[in-house]
Amino acid sequence: MPSNLVVRCFSVSADGYGAGPGQDIDNPMGVDGMTLHEWVLPTRIFQKMLFNKEGGTTGPDNDFAVHGFENIGAWILGRNMFGPVRGAWPDENWKGWWGDEPPYHCDVFVLTHHPRAPIEMKGGTVFHFVTDGIEAALQRARQSAGSKDIRLGGGVATIRQYLHARLVDELHLAMAPSLLGSGESLFANIDLPRLGYKVTQNVATAKATHLVLTRDS
Amino acid sequence: MPSNLVVRCFSVSADGYGAGPGQDIDNPMGVDGMTLHEWVLPTRIFQKMLFNKEGGTTGPDNDFAVHGFENIGAWILGRNMFGPVRGAWPDENWKGWWGDEPPYHCDVFVLTHHPRAPIEMKGGTVFHFVTDGIEAALQRARQSAGSKDIRLGGGVATIRQYLHARLVDELHLAMAPSLLGSGESLFANIDLPRLGYKVTQNVATAKATHLVLTRDS
Repeated sequence: MPSNLVVRCFSVSADGYGAGPGQDIDNPMGVDGMTLHEWVLPTRIFQKMLFNKEGGTTGPDNDFAVHGFENIGAWILGRNMFGPVRGAWPDENWKGWWGDEPPYHCDVFVLTHHPRAPIEMKGGTVFHFVTDGIEAALQRARQSAGSKDIRLGGGVATIRQYLHARLVDELHLAMAPSLLGSGESLFANIDLPRLGYKVTQNVATAKATHLVLTRDS
Repeated sequence: MPSNLVVRCFSVSADGYGAGPGQDIDNPMGVDGMTLHEWVLPTRIFQKMLFNKEGGTTGPDNDFAVHGFENIGAWILGRNMFGPVRGAWPDENWKGWWGDEPPYHCDVFVLTHHPRAPIEMKGGTVFHFVTDGIEAALQRARQSAGSKDIRLGGGVATIRQYLHARLVDELHLAMAPSLLGSGESLFANIDLPRLGYKVTQNVATAKATHLVLTRDS
């Protein structure tokens, strides 16, 4: 069975925004964007990953967060998800938001218009910079992932490109009970049923409504 | 305390559409639009109202549906919610989707560009046709409702007009776990936090995530 391209744990506001406006180094998720992630921060897996703390919540929120990292052999990220730098890379200093040991532990393909040498990080994460488009990035990710799945991390613009191309096999969205009002809309002018997607799973918790969208083959 | 203008039980798809595309006499909610209402149809109050049947589900879905009719002294509807007729009224035949005895039992103000005499229905519903805009309709509805609230029934375009004018005091949205892909988007290019709205209640059931949005004063 070939590996799937999956979006997992992608948080969206009730009004459809996947990030707040005004992303910068102080607001990696955009202004108020962190309100989208309140479902995941207290979970057992995130408490462990982010703060190396035991404890944290269990239940569906944690289950979805855990599943997000299962059987993933490679990642694809849009450049804005990799960092706040725009345009040509001024130097080699920026190495992602995640410190010396990012939580990926595999090859991560970063879409960009500006070439840059790969960066090898602690713990097995290697950032590769792909300048020849979304299909090329997917092809390289497939080679790296082998039989495992490829997780498309975001952001919104990158996910929309892969959706339009019908390349995403499954999306898990966590719809947060909050409003952002502006920013990047996941749904604007994209007809998901027409692209073959339907809701195949629906699990609501106090902090998010988890929807899994699957594409027909 | 003055009466409030409220939106209640307004169903929206996960991708933000309040109605499907292609509304006509066979598809009052647009194509696939009925999937938005799966949370409300089995409820005790709707089984009673629509089919005069006892039974039906209880719980939060029913509670929200019941609350939707509590303390309502008048309604405001957009013309497309009143019927599929567009342009000038060809005759007096169309009297709404709801048969001889509509479920309103009070004055209902229908926004239209085309004048028409009021229609008195069984059970106390009177349809009034308002041609001088949303504020005029609200003023007439306030006079009719007295100390009770005014419910703004929809559709999407009408609700958006009242939201932009900051005239809606409270909205209860039922977010359905389904995708419509096109139709009328409730959220597109409308910045609800900037207009003063925030989520003040969040109750999820298997069939809908109920969000109550309240405007700051």
